[in-house]
Amino acid sequence: MVLLLIDYVFVVSFLSLIAAGFLVRWILKQDQGTKRMQEISAAIKVGAETYLWRQYKTISIIVAIFTVLLAIVIRSPTNSWLGIDTALGFLLGALCSNLAGYIAMYISVRSNVRSAKGAMTSLDRALKIAFRGGVVFGLAVVSLSLLGISSLFLILGSDPHLIVGFGFGESFAALFAQLGGGIFTKAADMSADLVGKVEAGIPEDDPRNPAVIADLVGDNVGDIAGRGADLFESITAENIGAMILGVAPAVYSMFGINGLIFPLLARGFGLIGTMIGMFFVYSRKKEDPFSSLTRGLVVTGLFCAIGFYVLTVVLLNSQMNYFYAALVGIVTAILVAWITDYYTSYRKRPTLEIAIASEGGPAPSIATGLAVGMESSGLFIIVIGIAIMLAFGLGNGFQSLGPTLDITNPSFQTGIYGTAIATMGMLSVTPMILAMDGFGPITDNAGGILEMSGVGAKARAISDKLDSVGNTTKALTKGYGVASAALSAFLLFSAFLEVSGLNTVNLARPEVFIGAMVGAMLIFLFSSLAIKAVGRTAAIMIIEIRRQFKAMPGIMKGKVLPDYSRCIDISTKAALKNMVWPSLLVVIGPIVVGLILGAEAVGGLLMIGTVVGVLMALFMNNVGAALDNAKKYIETGSLGGKGSAAHAATVIGDTLGDPLKDTAGPSLHVVVKLLNTITLAMAPLFVLALLH
Amino acid sequence: MVLLLIDYVFVVSFLSLIAAGFLVRWILKQDQGTKRMQEISAAIKVGAETYLWRQYKTISIIVAIFTVLLAIVIRSPTNSWLGIDTALGFLLGALCSNLAGYIAMYISVRSNVRSAKGAMTSLDRALKIAFRGGVVFGLAVVSLSLLGISSLFLILGSDPHLIVGFGFGESFAALFAQLGGGIFTKAADMSADLVGKVEAGIPEDDPRNPAVIADLVGDNVGDIAGRGADLFESITAENIGAMILGVAPAVYSMFGINGLIFPLLARGFGLIGTMIGMFFVYSRKKEDPFSSLTRGLVVTGLFCAIGFYVLTVVLLNSQMNYFYAALVGIVTAILVAWITDYYTSYRKRPTLEIAIASEGGPAPSIATGLAVGMESSGLFIIVIGIAIMLAFGLGNGFQSLGPTLDITNPSFQTGIYGTAIATMGMLSVTPMILAMDGFGPITDNAGGILEMSGVGAKARAISDKLDSVGNTTKALTKGYGVASAALSAFLLFSAFLEVSGLNTVNLARPEVFIGAMVGAMLIFLFSSLAIKAVGRTAAIMIIEIRRQFKAMPGIMKGKVLPDYSRCIDISTKAALKNMVWPSLLVVIGPIVVGLILGAEAVGGLLMIGTVVGVLMALFMNNVGAALDNAKKYIETGSLGGKGSAAHAATVIGDTLGDPLKDTAGPSLHVVVKLLNTITLAMAPLFVLALLH
Repeated sequence: MVLLLIDYVFVVSFLSLIAAGFLVRWILKQDQGTKRMQEISAAIKVGAETYLWRQYKTISIIVAIFTVLLAIVIRSPTNSWLGIDTALGFLLGALCSNLAGYIAMYISVRSNVRSAKGAMTSLDRALKIAFRGGVVFGLAVVSLSLLGISSLFLILGSDPHLIVGFGFGESFAALFAQLGGGIFTKAADMSADLVGKVEAGIPEDDPRNPAVIADLVGDNVGDIAGRGADLFESITAENIGAMILGVAPAVYSMFGINGLIFPLLARGFGLIGTMIGMFFVYSRKKEDPFSSLTRGLVVTGLFCAIGFYVLTVVLLNSQMNYFYAALVGIVTAILVAWITDYYTSYRKRPTLEIAIASEGGPAPSIATGLAVGMESSGLFIIVIGIAIMLAFGLGNGFQSLGPTLDITNPSFQTGIYGTAIATMGMLSVTPMILAMDGFGPITDNAGGILEMSGVGAKARAISDKLDSVGNTTKALTKGYGVASAALSAFLLFSAFLEVSGLNTVNLARPEVFIGAMVGAMLIFLFSSLAIKAVGRTAAIMIIEIRRQFKAMPGIMKGKVLPDYSRCIDISTKAALKNMVWPSLLVVIGPIVVGLILGAEAVGGLLMIGTVVGVLMALFMNNVGAALDNAKKYIETGSLGGKGSAAHAATVIGDTLGDPLKDTAGPSLHVVVKLLNTITLAMAPLFVLALLH
Repeated sequence: MVLLLIDYVFVVSFLSLIAAGFLVRWILKQDQGTKRMQEISAAIKVGAETYLWRQYKTISIIVAIFTVLLAIVIRSPTNSWLGIDTALGFLLGALCSNLAGYIAMYISVRSNVRSAKGAMTSLDRALKIAFRGGVVFGLAVVSLSLLGISSLFLILGSDPHLIVGFGFGESFAALFAQLGGGIFTKAADMSADLVGKVEAGIPEDDPRNPAVIADLVGDNVGDIAGRGADLFESITAENIGAMILGVAPAVYSMFGINGLIFPLLARGFGLIGTMIGMFFVYSRKKEDPFSSLTRGLVVTGLFCAIGFYVLTVVLLNSQMNYFYAALVGIVTAILVAWITDYYTSYRKRPTLEIAIASEGGPAPSIATGLAVGMESSGLFIIVIGIAIMLAFGLGNGFQSLGPTLDITNPSFQTGIYGTAIATMGMLSVTPMILAMDGFGPITDNAGGILEMSGVGAKARAISDKLDSVGNTTKALTKGYGVASAALSAFLLFSAFLEVSGLNTVNLARPEVFIGAMVGAMLIFLFSSLAIKAVGRTAAIMIIEIRRQFKAMPGIMKGKVLPDYSRCIDISTKAALKNMVWPSLLVVIGPIVVGLILGAEAVGGLLMIGTVVGVLMALFMNNVGAALDNAKKYIETGSLGGKGSAAHAATVIGDTLGDPLKDTAGPSLHVVVKLLNTITLAMAPLFVLALLH
């Protein structure tokens, strides 16, 4: 039975990969447009590939060192292979993460120019190509994760503790990828804006701007490859957490091995749902592309809900409370999307407040933006809080845990399993969400290619429309990413307790309080380093762009092409250099705390690091998106429109928001999950703590 | 013996008040300068008094409602008077807090013009008048706190639990005072800068600016009265926490009632030390005023250290480890001052980084500023973490707490008592710190009065020098305020456990995790509301200033005086309106969580709210100070000096930083302590929780 079910997972994963392969073939068959468009696309492709290969080289060296270290230091009295197993899982996880990023980039640099050409025909064509590029990305990432975990499950047996190395490896690699890509893309974007738009007065994506290709490359390596690695890790970490809790005695006694493979099967339904939902994304005349995408998502969501129903009947003895827990997760995802939209759309009060404050100048504009970002945490936390209480209660039948908590308490174990299933519910639509997320940078690139090759305004208008939808989907998927991190945090925290044999993480202990402070501090320090890395890289780029404008006066006249590759090279080098230390900080910080203060202190670090990480990510994502949209609102002609003082104020705010929303914020999603996987993997070490 | 010692506390407190009275007489005897200076001073005085009275009226209504509610809802099976006692303590605390703020304002609006006149004679004279104004403030605040607590101690007996109402009352009133004052001062400051400096091109403190008097009033009601209420609450809350833990059985069995009155006596030494240290603040020719102030602080610190030695010998059976714990506290205060200086002085790397980034425009400048603010949490948390571990270890002889923690464990109780004594060590120099803190706004006002009355450049140069020292002391005392909040957080948390009879606040429970998330969220929401309140008030002021410039063209020619009082009136109304909801949010939030999720969840809220509050306060204070000083650095002539693009960028950053560093940041200091006092006072209610 179990092997049969696992076979089903393999079959679905392979089917998804085959479907992705067919989609790739379909995309590659599309027309690539004019010679000029192909040249630009080729330049982007070369830039993105060069960057990724160099990034993977850097990551590989660090991964190799850590693999050896893990094999040596991780020891267990009951399992002499633990170190080797963890190290191998780590290596495999890092490889899979890099592969997921590479596949995502591979398809996006090929879809962009074809979607651009499609925009010269019709909205439907451009939409389909860009979206199917995103679907390839979504299917590939999720199937890779499933294949990785299922293979390890078959090789290493049913003890999911051994798979934690895999989770650590993929989040480790994902952090470098997301941070490095984020630095690359925003340094290019900021400097292109500051020198091109502000100083030289040329429009966005103008071919005369030396940093324009670097900016387009950035969309592929930051938004696509980085986010791919990020969500690859989300689903993997959650699967691992759910499987660890699936073997908890109270759950195991109810469902046996079924409780353990439930997460894998649920994920399989998400893949099938996405393949079905994909066919519902098309644009009949005049339909808003956003509603096309939403239709696809709704179909996928409905299919997943049915899947959960079937799985609950088949695997969980028809205990419908677990099905309701899954629904809680799905509803939470919808609510979070609505909250994100409320706080970042210029049709709603918060962003309008920023636009109005902009009439007082950049300082009031940015101050209001920061305030909106902080405010957005309110509803979010309330929704997540209620979701956790409900899911936990549905899991254990709303029983009291009693005055002293023991993790062997059945009502605790079944409660946590309820939150695990809610998290699965939320994450079931991940492949579709990934597709929508990938859609954004692809259309962004398509718009850039059209602008640079100077083709007709009609195609440009179509791509602009898609681009603006892409901005919305990007913001929503970021909200989804943070919400999944918050919801799974409690689950992964329980997994950590399970692995380290703790019954309690008691804040009344001084070392736990200190661990908690350090957890919050690591988030602040990491964010600081990420923002500064963008600033430093942009400063070097700005000097280079100014130099090119000065040395080659022909550039501004449009007679000479600027030296694009130097800008790409600068971004590449600086991104690789600056991604290393912040990432190592969040890897080494918890280990140091664990070795000095012990496992319970790490529990405090983990939990508070997660809470603060989630809030800061939300803050930075929403500040950036709201400031961006306040600018877009004024550009619609309100409050004086383009060229007004209010517009100038929002341009400054938008630029400031870039490193927050596209570098520091998304990297924090990964940090939060990395804190979980690293502490899971390192737990056996913490018994050696100085102050144990 | 005990009564004798308490008598000593009364005697010292009364002596301090008498000394303060003599200082007031001395200050009032000083020359008030020209008629014009007296007119301006009178306008400031009237504005400040009017605002404070209206503010106290608003606060009184809310306090009256809460007093009645407390008397009704707070119930205890063992003490039928608990509600009445708590309510009376609450009322007295609120009254004392308002009185402390009023005294501070009273002396500052009288010292400012006299210090201005002093600057026309010599630096020494201006320094002495401004500083002694600050000393009055410091002595009055600390003696009021001591008298309040000691009186309650004598009336209600040795059970310090009954004094928690007092703590709640004073932090409740302090929050309104700090937030209302902060909104008033920064709305006036921002709008005066934005319209006066940027749009009309007139210098700071120019009499033609309609908001200039409101700005000067703001220094008195925000920085002086607000900060007075803030630090009044710091020392009171810490005294109460230390006294609650002084009766813990393990401590009581060692020291008897001595352990309980130790905190009061230690505070008495601080008062005497300040009165002595005061005489060491003078400026012989060419001496930097900052080193004069530092000399005074060092003398006070040394005297306090000796005091702790004597008290340890007399009251704590010469157990020198407690003396060392007090030294840990004093050293921590010094280190935190050094860290604050490092992150905000333009002689150091972080602020210089901002200045250099400003050459790329306002966005890179502010991004770097935000990054510097986040980075500053690193060293701070490490220092506080080590201080807590050391003090706890010194308290219990570095014994292990064992695998399961019980708050009746003697080694836990004595450990906490160690952290209590370290906090006392840090807070012992509070009166002197308050004096230095009050010194800043007084000299700021003096400079404004000199500028507006158009007296000689020599006096203005002296007051500028003092003003710049005042900026430094303001930044350092804010760092001190955050550090004392962080250090005392652990102490007050233990007091909460003691009062609510909890052994553990276990993060593995879903309701505790949710409480923790809500704690962090409250901090973000409160900050958001505080920043927005400033922005909204400033927006109304901006319209009014522009209206006056337009309606009365004579203003800009210097022929007609602008209508100062209308600006004061706008700031007053808006500040009072906007201070209410954010403050009620942080009062009602913990109560709601406690009533729904129970005491343990409130423990999570309290602890994480504190950690996040401390970090956010630090972040916002340091962002503001560093952005301010980056501007000052460029104004020294570096990077193009005044008028350069880099300077324009830092002016924007400085304005943005204002509401962060002078409204939201300092208000968060109060919020953190309010969370502690409110949960202490409400603990008896949480047994009624829905999910108990």
